[in-house]
Amino acid sequence: MASPYRPRPISGYPEWTPAIRLQELRWLDHIRHCFESYGFCSVETPSVEELEVLLAKGETDKEIYTINRLQADAGQSEARLGLHYDLTVPLARYVAQHFNELTFPFKRYQMQRSWRGERPQEGRFREFTQCDIDVIGVDQLPLHFDAEMPLIMAELLMGLKVPPVRLHISNRKILAGFLAGLGISDPAAAIRVLDKMDKIGASKVGELLVSECGFSQSDAAKALQLAAIKTSDASFAKELRALGVSHELLALGIEELLFVQSYLQSLPEAMAVIDLGIARGFDYYTGTVYEGRLVDYPDFGSVVAGGRYDDLASSFIAKKLPGVGISLGLTRLFSKMVKENLLPQGASSPADILLILPNEEQRPACVTYAQQLRQRGFKVEMYHAPQKLAKQLSYAEKKGIPYVWFPPFEAGGAHEVKNMQQGSQQPADPADWLPANSVPANRVSA
Amino acid sequence: MASPYRPRPISGYPEWTPAIRLQELRWLDHIRHCFESYGFCSVETPSVEELEVLLAKGETDKEIYTINRLQADAGQSEARLGLHYDLTVPLARYVAQHFNELTFPFKRYQMQRSWRGERPQEGRFREFTQCDIDVIGVDQLPLHFDAEMPLIMAELLMGLKVPPVRLHISNRKILAGFLAGLGISDPAAAIRVLDKMDKIGASKVGELLVSECGFSQSDAAKALQLAAIKTSDASFAKELRALGVSHELLALGIEELLFVQSYLQSLPEAMAVIDLGIARGFDYYTGTVYEGRLVDYPDFGSVVAGGRYDDLASSFIAKKLPGVGISLGLTRLFSKMVKENLLPQGASSPADILLILPNEEQRPACVTYAQQLRQRGFKVEMYHAPQKLAKQLSYAEKKGIPYVWFPPFEAGGAHEVKNMQQGSQQPADPADWLPANSVPANRVSA
Repeated sequence: MASPYRPRPISGYPEWTPAIRLQELRWLDHIRHCFESYGFCSVETPSVEELEVLLAKGETDKEIYTINRLQADAGQSEARLGLHYDLTVPLARYVAQHFNELTFPFKRYQMQRSWRGERPQEGRFREFTQCDIDVIGVDQLPLHFDAEMPLIMAELLMGLKVPPVRLHISNRKILAGFLAGLGISDPAAAIRVLDKMDKIGASKVGELLVSECGFSQSDAAKALQLAAIKTSDASFAKELRALGVSHELLALGIEELLFVQSYLQSLPEAMAVIDLGIARGFDYYTGTVYEGRLVDYPDFGSVVAGGRYDDLASSFIAKKLPGVGISLGLTRLFSKMVKENLLPQGASSPADILLILPNEEQRPACVTYAQQLRQRGFKVEMYHAPQKLAKQLSYAEKKGIPYVWFPPFEAGGAHEVKNMQQGSQQPADPADWLPANSVPANRVSA
Repeated sequence: MASPYRPRPISGYPEWTPAIRLQELRWLDHIRHCFESYGFCSVETPSVEELEVLLAKGETDKEIYTINRLQADAGQSEARLGLHYDLTVPLARYVAQHFNELTFPFKRYQMQRSWRGERPQEGRFREFTQCDIDVIGVDQLPLHFDAEMPLIMAELLMGLKVPPVRLHISNRKILAGFLAGLGISDPAAAIRVLDKMDKIGASKVGELLVSECGFSQSDAAKALQLAAIKTSDASFAKELRALGVSHELLALGIEELLFVQSYLQSLPEAMAVIDLGIARGFDYYTGTVYEGRLVDYPDFGSVVAGGRYDDLASSFIAKKLPGVGISLGLTRLFSKMVKENLLPQGASSPADILLILPNEEQRPACVTYAQQLRQRGFKVEMYHAPQKLAKQLSYAEKKGIPYVWFPPFEAGGAHEVKNMQQGSQQPADPADWLPANSVPANRVSA
């Protein structure tokens, strides 16, 4: 036998053992259920897009991967396709291409892998799964959807049983209208400076606003006050108005944010906060913006992000398609839970029941018993060989299979089922329903 | 507005509209349920493998795609990674790499995309989803699993409600033992000739066996007789033995195939057939082999394939790891159903209920009603704006949402629910259970 090549993990490409993967599946099921329960439909797009599509907005900083045939002749290079780096560009292309086949407002969810050639580090991968929802309208899109997004994401996060995530919500029109109200000539430059808040602190930002952006001391102070407004209720509007700046766009932003905030009242108070200091740099967004962070890991960055945009797909279709969306960085959040050892320790098998094979003569009967149990909705593995009972039980234990079923060892005998965790054993019938709570329908969620 | 770039479909990369995707999801759910109900655990691997891994068995004919960073410096090419072209090589690498973390027999399912740079044509794609199950043992693996594979696949196929698929089952030891029993000096050459049966016909194959492989006329006739044996019961063994050839390996092959056949009795007769004429060319397999074909589309080729192999991963680990597996070509089969228009015509939304928004004042109450209905397990879309009733109803109709919920239009009024297909409307309560069959739990499967 030739000395085998030892494969190594590939940096930036996560891979899980079966027990961890079972937890990831539970997450994916829950996320999909949340999205569908609000009426979002599933879309999957190819892993690749034409480079013209990926680069339509000049995105050369996304570390795009192209694909090439290994055996391709030099003159036949196929590098006209690249792996998508997010799910928004594919959505824009999808909506443009299938425009006449879709019903608007178009509500889709998409849970797919994306690829970026970034340097791998904690929370950043070269291959990762995003879970996105977006609603796309034609010409206009009701604010209703801006308000629904944080509700869906909050429900999703609560069901994942992760450490607290707080959703920070703002509206881009507020800062833009505020700067217009102050009469700032180059708002983009001011926003760039305000964006450095986390890095250089408020006082340095204030100095730069004065020295580089032509703010008066008083206007700079007001801008800093605005960026510090953070309220769990509607009082942000009062605090804002107290700054004494007025502008039509600012008023519209406040009105929109009040509407969104009014929907948040059904959430636990710590779950969502109006935070006028967030998302200054997301120039793609034009209204509501969302950012979700792990409260206990303030340096980990956002695990949820999204917002309202005016123009999804004008690169691909001559239509005005406004939208709003929110995205969960699944691999980012999940891998953090793996790293912090915060996932439930569980089984490596989805089976509910291991059916014991007492001896070779019983095999056909056992195949039938297993089928009966499956027809009742249980996930059943039949042990493959009439080995010693201790060996069969140990197999169930190693895989974390919670129930072991003993068929009769001889004709006329009784069936019994053993609860592996409690050690208890009781009579049962494979063709009959079990006592209500003896085998939970979905043990994985326990 | 600059003239937009019109994106085009990319040949070989299928993409579905929401209504078709909803059907594909139904398939994926059912397939996963089948696999899990037999105790297989989920594994996902990265989309890429090291080229050393992909090429370990000299697979240069699989049209491998490498990935490269678009902006990579010439000297920094990263083409040491390629997209996987099947799920078997990733499984071999996974088992070798995680060997000490797995419990054997290791039963895994994997439903993932793979990529091949082939010329796209009917049923052949550059990006496609396979659904694989495999059981891997250490040193040895009971024949039980060979027998279980066709049962699982049959159950899976019956649930998909596709036109009839027949599973053809044989055992590679039979032909190998038969040729050894005849004393054929170059069995590989004989198998290559027998492999041409579909192309050149039996009589030409018989001539070549004599002229090129040194068969006597009588031995050639026997080989052709063997390849023609096709029985729905155990009588293949009698027909084989009647050919008067004997060899230890042949006897073992017959015994194994009889064991597998004995499990098939629970299946509808037309579902599985012992067919000694199949899979002569799969040199990877060493025992049981499976091939599933659409009965009504004999030229479409196989949609299911698999078998027993002695050696999964010796390229990566110094262990003997025998296994048996079976794979459904999901994209291949599903796209055929799309093309033949054989999928149920259905909704484009997963929602069960569209909740009418009568007027702006009712909005907060409607948000609450929708939440109540979701908590009862329904998928509920609340209409986003208090538009004309006809418009709201037309939205439900276009998206195929089967029930429309009318909250009271004024205080003290009653809720009503309308069955869109039947047109009937009846009183209901969002906080109470509905009459048993008024909204089916999973309408999509209807």
